[in-house]
Amino acid sequence: MYLVNGSPSTTFDVADRGLHYGDGLFETIEIDRRQAVFLAQHFRRLQTGCQRLRLPVPDLHLLADEIASLCQAAPEHGQAVIKIIITRGVGGRGYRQPEPIQSSRILSLHPFPDYPDSFQEQGIAARFCQTRLGVSPALAGIKHLNRLEQVLARAEWSDTATQEGLLLNVDGHVIEGTMSNLFYVKDGVVYTALLTRSGVAGVVRGLVMELCRQQPLKLVEHDYTPAALLAADEVFLSNAIIGLWPVRQIDGHVFQVGVLTRHLQSQLRHLKALDREVGHAL
Amino acid sequence: MYLVNGSPSTTFDVADRGLHYGDGLFETIEIDRRQAVFLAQHFRRLQTGCQRLRLPVPDLHLLADEIASLCQAAPEHGQAVIKIIITRGVGGRGYRQPEPIQSSRILSLHPFPDYPDSFQEQGIAARFCQTRLGVSPALAGIKHLNRLEQVLARAEWSDTATQEGLLLNVDGHVIEGTMSNLFYVKDGVVYTALLTRSGVAGVVRGLVMELCRQQPLKLVEHDYTPAALLAADEVFLSNAIIGLWPVRQIDGHVFQVGVLTRHLQSQLRHLKALDREVGHAL
Repeated sequence: MYLVNGSPSTTFDVADRGLHYGDGLFETIEIDRRQAVFLAQHFRRLQTGCQRLRLPVPDLHLLADEIASLCQAAPEHGQAVIKIIITRGVGGRGYRQPEPIQSSRILSLHPFPDYPDSFQEQGIAARFCQTRLGVSPALAGIKHLNRLEQVLARAEWSDTATQEGLLLNVDGHVIEGTMSNLFYVKDGVVYTALLTRSGVAGVVRGLVMELCRQQPLKLVEHDYTPAALLAADEVFLSNAIIGLWPVRQIDGHVFQVGVLTRHLQSQLRHLKALDREVGHAL
Repeated sequence: MYLVNGSPSTTFDVADRGLHYGDGLFETIEIDRRQAVFLAQHFRRLQTGCQRLRLPVPDLHLLADEIASLCQAAPEHGQAVIKIIITRGVGGRGYRQPEPIQSSRILSLHPFPDYPDSFQEQGIAARFCQTRLGVSPALAGIKHLNRLEQVLARAEWSDTATQEGLLLNVDGHVIEGTMSNLFYVKDGVVYTALLTRSGVAGVVRGLVMELCRQQPLKLVEHDYTPAALLAADEVFLSNAIIGLWPVRQIDGHVFQVGVLTRHLQSQLRHLKALDREVGHAL
């Protein structure tokens, strides 16, 4: 189910710059019992992304209303996914942006993926992809629509025994999964990749970092190699739909689900419950 | 005027992966007196791009028929532009590609830009952009739909005195213009950027390289810095719509329009006339 600029539609203007140049960004939001989870955080990232891409920030009250309207079609007692795409709208041929920019917004409601509980509990199996993420400081961190590298990486495997592919960038640093951010724990310290040259700064990645600061747990953002990852005590993935998944295996190398992963999973669930209670102050 | 999968349309499927991920590629083709220019070369690049992105190559006879049909709406005695977009088609949420892939094709006819003759004759003014092209060997050379860097670069200037912005990549090498490839001449040798880490391998860039080999003129593809460019005897730009434009100025640094630029312009015009005569063997 799609809402295109506020109206139900299955089609979209063929002159939109989202199609022609990937000129825009997106958010993927968990819907739990017809309510958006961590909406304020998603909106904050959307704003930051728009500013970096010089896109007008959409009216967030309007967006929240449209999300609420889509939520009415979501399961009353279960979960769903809402995706928001914001593009630079319709423009002529050529990279030069139209003036003024009339951005487009496309909201869609999707079923929640049927991941088994074991992914949360016993963890998942990951592999290193051959595809390398590019290095582009101008775009690093933004959840933009230029996602060909992720598409190529995700096409590297089709077996259902592997749940996620891990990506190095062209510098040789481990950055993230195709659809998730990656953390590891070593000697009680939590590590994750610096996203100044590659990668997407996920909303749940931000929450995990915030949780680490509150505990306090020592958290380090840095450039690291596959060797550092494979020497870790614990490894886990994050995104807005999966929450935290422990990684129990990377290319046959086995990890235990550790206490810090369990602790952060439980803290994240707590945050989510709190988020539901207090609602979303825009 | 748009043809979406063969039918006139102003809209396309909102679930198309071209919109969601920039998952596809494009060609921009000059139409001269209702005939596509260098169509065989455009089709060859389209095939190469599809192979690298693991997209099924579209039926080229069908594409040629659709181009011919759009050409009927182009000026009988003038020029126009046809853009072809090929995407991985409609798919569910997530990077994993649908199986089988049903690619989408979007063809559109546009007016020819009203560039003054002086751009061909006296040359144009260019500037270096602040935006750096990313480094992504997996995507380098392909005319794919992930074009946010070009959009950001093109937004750096709006004065009409500047016709093109020149882009370095994050390695610090000069790669190309926002919409064109870049060549320079020094001591009788023609130089252009290696496109193994960044950039788009333009069809006219390929023809210029071919012309150099035939003359023969020494041609070098290499990594080079702005200093090497500014020390050049001649500088010119190429793309399928502009042909070759001499560069007479980069950020105030002045160049003469040299004999090799003139020679290659004339050779390219000759190739174009020949292309029109022999038609397009697919």
